[in-house]
Amino acid sequence: MAYSPLLQDLLDALRCLPGVGPRSAQRMAFRLLEHDRDAGRRLASAMTAALDTITECTRCRMLAETELCWICAASGRDSSTVCIVESPADVIAVEDSAAYNGHYFVLMGRLSPLDGVGPDELGLGLLEKEFAEGRIKEIIIATSATVEGEATAGYLSSLARNYNIRASRIAHGVPLGGELEFVDSSTLSLAIAGRKNLGDDVAGE
Amino acid sequence: MAYSPLLQDLLDALRCLPGVGPRSAQRMAFRLLEHDRDAGRRLASAMTAALDTITECTRCRMLAETELCWICAASGRDSSTVCIVESPADVIAVEDSAAYNGHYFVLMGRLSPLDGVGPDELGLGLLEKEFAEGRIKEIIIATSATVEGEATAGYLSSLARNYNIRASRIAHGVPLGGELEFVDSSTLSLAIAGRKNLGDDVAGE
Repeated sequence: MAYSPLLQDLLDALRCLPGVGPRSAQRMAFRLLEHDRDAGRRLASAMTAALDTITECTRCRMLAETELCWICAASGRDSSTVCIVESPADVIAVEDSAAYNGHYFVLMGRLSPLDGVGPDELGLGLLEKEFAEGRIKEIIIATSATVEGEATAGYLSSLARNYNIRASRIAHGVPLGGELEFVDSSTLSLAIAGRKNLGDDVAGE
Repeated sequence: MAYSPLLQDLLDALRCLPGVGPRSAQRMAFRLLEHDRDAGRRLASAMTAALDTITECTRCRMLAETELCWICAASGRDSSTVCIVESPADVIAVEDSAAYNGHYFVLMGRLSPLDGVGPDELGLGLLEKEFAEGRIKEIIIATSATVEGEATAGYLSSLARNYNIRASRIAHGVPLGGELEFVDSSTLSLAIAGRKNLGDDVAGE
């Protein structure tokens, strides 16, 4: 099917969005053109503004439109703890949990030598500079539970050891509300290997 | 969770797209900002260009960036037949079937007096002007098989009768490859009511 040139451009451009195939692109384009031109204009200008202005926080590499991101700039956060994550979406996920009140460091990826992603690409020079300043007491490594995520975690913890910084890893196991029969076997074997002594737990609380 | 203002604007604006909720909006925004800034800029400018330029075809009300849409402007199409559909997406669907080589008329809705959609909103004045010119021999009514779609079809066929134009309705029934047990009962009752005599069919071909 041939569309008119501008319509075809718009359809092709919409396909750059994750999860948008030819049919959703068509649905989006027609919706905007038929019913929602103002919303479409707002979207185009919000997108341009965001792309022109948002860069990386100079301290934690989170997406930021000012020199420091809104988390680094916030007062009342514990700056001695840094949670290290792979992506901005992970920051949002941890923030949503409301279980953490420290700072972050966003790797924007994970170590993957075959893809040419080494410590430099992950901004570890910047992190090491922070380590050297002596403000940080603990890093919480929240990289993904994949081979590369684990390798990254190992690298980060040895980096922290050089500066006498405590390194911890978020716990992996059966999710809350997860029924055993539906949990995949690798998670389950992790959960068994990482079992906690109930006596310890009580003592710890 | 509080985002930075520009990011929040972008997230809100993305929600205007059909099928995009908070999570997909976040995934889209982060994908564009982290990995695909050029594609994002292209999308914003394609969107602006389309919204600024695309209007309705003056003859058939299809989306068009020129006075006549690319279908009305094409040579070699049968201008004596007009397929009447509810939306631009329906035009694309009929075009994709490759079963039709005439012109279209896009109602941009269907008769719905309670919502204030009458003949004027559907551009029927424009259609009637075309009828009066005498070029059109047949209209194929392809409005949806809903109560309002049927009412619209009835209105259109009586309009056509005034001008001695043949009006037909696309067939409704069991879709190709549709197994009877999975076809809904209203479709099945339509299919039975609209059954065709096999002898007639052979004679007709």
